[in-house]
Amino acid sequence: MKILHHLLKQSSVSGNESQIAQFLLDTIEQRKNDWKVCPQIYSGEDFHDCILLKFGNPRTALFAHMDTIGFMTRYENQLIPVGGPETEDGMLLIGEDELGPIECRLKVEDDSLFHDFQRPIQPGTYLSFAQNIRVDGEYIQAAYLDNRLGLYTALQVCENLEHGWVIFSTYEEHGGGSMPFLLKFIQENHPIRQALIADITWVTEGVVPHEGVAISIRDRYIPRRKFIDRVIALATESKIPFQLEVEASGGSDGREIQFSPYPIDWCFVGAAEDNVHSPDEKVSLADLDSMIDIHQYLMKHL
Amino acid sequence: MKILHHLLKQSSVSGNESQIAQFLLDTIEQRKNDWKVCPQIYSGEDFHDCILLKFGNPRTALFAHMDTIGFMTRYENQLIPVGGPETEDGMLLIGEDELGPIECRLKVEDDSLFHDFQRPIQPGTYLSFAQNIRVDGEYIQAAYLDNRLGLYTALQVCENLEHGWVIFSTYEEHGGGSMPFLLKFIQENHPIRQALIADITWVTEGVVPHEGVAISIRDRYIPRRKFIDRVIALATESKIPFQLEVEASGGSDGREIQFSPYPIDWCFVGAAEDNVHSPDEKVSLADLDSMIDIHQYLMKHL
Amino acid sequence: MKILHHLLKQSSVSGNESQIAQFLLDTIEQRKNDWKVCPQIYSGEDFHDCILLKFGNPRTALFAHMDTIGFMTRYENQLIPVGGPETEDGMLLIGEDELGPIECRLKVEDDSLFHDFQRPIQPGTYLSFAQNIRVDGEYIQAAYLDNRLGLYTALQVCENLEHGWVIFSTYEEHGGGSMPFLLKFIQENHPIRQALIADITWVTEGVVPHEGVAISIRDRYIPRRKFIDRVIALATESKIPFQLEVEASGGSDGREIQFSPYPIDWCFVGAAEDNVHSPDEKVSLADLDSMIDIHQYLMKHL
Repeated sequence: MKILHHLLKQSSVSGNESQIAQFLLDTIEQRKNDWKVCPQIYSGEDFHDCILLKFGNPRTALFAHMDTIGFMTRYENQLIPVGGPETEDGMLLIGEDELGPIECRLKVEDDSLFHDFQRPIQPGTYLSFAQNIRVDGEYIQAAYLDNRLGLYTALQVCENLEHGWVIFSTYEEHGGGSMPFLLKFIQENHPIRQALIADITWVTEGVVPHEGVAISIRDRYIPRRKFIDRVIALATESKIPFQLEVEASGGSDGREIQFSPYPIDWCFVGAAEDNVHSPDEKVSLADLDSMIDIHQYLMKHL
Repeated sequence: MKILHHLLKQSSVSGNESQIAQFLLDTIEQRKNDWKVCPQIYSGEDFHDCILLKFGNPRTALFAHMDTIGFMTRYENQLIPVGGPETEDGMLLIGEDELGPIECRLKVEDDSLFHDFQRPIQPGTYLSFAQNIRVDGEYIQAAYLDNRLGLYTALQVCENLEHGWVIFSTYEEHGGGSMPFLLKFIQENHPIRQALIADITWVTEGVVPHEGVAISIRDRYIPRRKFIDRVIALATESKIPFQLEVEASGGSDGREIQFSPYPIDWCFVGAAEDNVHSPDEKVSLADLDSMIDIHQYLMKHL
Repeated sequence: MKILHHLLKQSSVSGNESQIAQFLLDTIEQRKNDWKVCPQIYSGEDFHDCILLKFGNPRTALFAHMDTIGFMTRYENQLIPVGGPETEDGMLLIGEDELGPIECRLKVEDDSLFHDFQRPIQPGTYLSFAQNIRVDGEYIQAAYLDNRLGLYTALQVCENLEHGWVIFSTYEEHGGGSMPFLLKFIQENHPIRQALIADITWVTEGVVPHEGVAISIRDRYIPRRKFIDRVIALATESKIPFQLEVEASGGSDGREIQFSPYPIDWCFVGAAEDNVHSPDEKVSLADLDSMIDIHQYLMKHL
């Protein structure tokens, strides 16, 4: 899990994904010759900061978003959110502007957000949660498990993948915007009809730690039941532990597949976390294992 | 109206349209040779559960959505809505899970929804309103007139149509998602610049029963006035009774035409109902007649 | 600025842009031979009421929307908004229906809107703010500076432009809908990777009159930072006065570029106004000058 620690230390608030994209590209370059199949890599300005890997003859695409929630400085020590971060007075934030590195505390006053840095920060500067990784025998706890665990899962899937697209997307936490051009590229190059979303969901009364990865029957959006039933049947056959999720809210890159001009079925498959969008996101290591296992299984058998 | 009764008895909550799609396909196969023009039929996995009929050389497309609002089971007897159903304590709901058929009552407690079925229902099970069709000399009353009357209208239009697309779409009640790929297919095969939406709207102080089908000048979205003026001019010329609707909210498949990457004008044309999205939707039979008549007229003359 | 006065007197509430489109087309026809480069003009029913001008070999597209906020009559003297107009009791509104010209007052009663015209107005009639243009040495004040100043800026940019798209879009104030087909046409004819939005923003504690055009780092949506940094570097190099804007809300045609299926970077560049979406929008003439200057500079150097 060394690579996961490296991933967790990168900063990539939505709109500013260049650094993590470069880190992923370097990692892929170092590893690709050890993978069962060496993929074709698509990246660069024609893809903004996204990365697409094509293995063999894909039937299914796996999506993991590389951006995170965070904050941006406005005027007069004000902060505005990027995506939907939890906001608790005193949270430690880090960033950098032209004057140097920044480490400050979040101040919450009457629903408005401020920083307490000793000097003004340039307007439009991104801040993110200071990282603090905690691992014990049962859990990993850190900022941005959502969606570093998805990136990690995708990289693990790459190791044995024979046929499939693996896609690293941007902007998922702040309304999206890269999925439409990624899907267009996929469909115009090597089209697919099936997609899996490797992302993190919430612990609820129905989805609890250590009981396996969650397969989502719906969130705010509803994938086509015919496909979900196939995914569940395969998951059952695999004997890998999983739980079924049914939520009325929340979303993922699946939303943009649903509304794309392509008839692509999609399903969200990911471990559940406590303390969502906070510096203390917490995921069961057993659930992470089953997340990796089931994505490997589904990419092979779908 | 026998076919309408059959349509009203099918279950097709958004995301789960396979059954109604098959019923429509069977109906189309049985009838198509009696139609003035035998259409080309597009369906199957490349279109998910949607159906496209191409008659002659289309200038205009007619859209009718085949999905309905409903409910889905979550955990511990909870229900969450699909689309925006009315919720009244005691409403009769039906469905089916792997353990067998389900008939239960809706329980509304502090804005949360539950069912009262005597056994747990599998999470992710679709429930819909139990059907109760009532017809007298003036009105038809039933669950899901929205949009079974649109399907019925579309099938009636098929009988004499010489040139046009007739499209049965999915997911309209829950955010959409099939229109983008349907429009892409239409525009890449036999493109059109004009679209009509055959769907059901609301009775208001401005649109009342028995006064004719409603032609909508706007709902939450605003079609291009130049086109609406042409539709109204043709409707006037036809002598078929109609009313003009002006609403600030509500939407239809027209929304996705508006936001599609194609310059296609659209107009919503449909009868108004009372008791929207309840088991007791109620529409004037005269308004249904004028809905069918005006769609036939517009598909011919636009 | 004579052309600006003419622009300000046209009516073009979203959905009803034919009149302003014709005015712009006439103006372009009259002027194009005096421009440094004579552009290719795309307009007509294939583009609804939009206009595209292609100069030379474009690398960047400049977008200015031609529609405005306003009102539409409903039933029984009710009005509903088009876009998000300010509503103050007594505001003077104008329009026209089949019975003749209309001049009336807005009545605001318990959050509902009415008109006080002496006769009923046909349902679905567009009304807009009566125009009252006030110019002094420092400011221009009028209805619909948003986005007549964008149109004016675009026309000024045309004078010396060698390479670039200049696009006049519709529907921006009411959810959009023309950008998707405009972007598709651009990308399928002479594709670009960069876009500028010439539109009007708000005076805030961070963006004040007379300090230069605002370059927006974000509004509700967040353009890619890599591109914004390039725009800011060029703006700095140009010595033209500008201010940096950071907002959590608001949107522009940039939103639809963000969500388009093309990897196009975008940036909003526009003067700030007081009294947004009212008949008394007020913009610094110096800021208008820097808006024109910087768009000319960026279209040349990006």
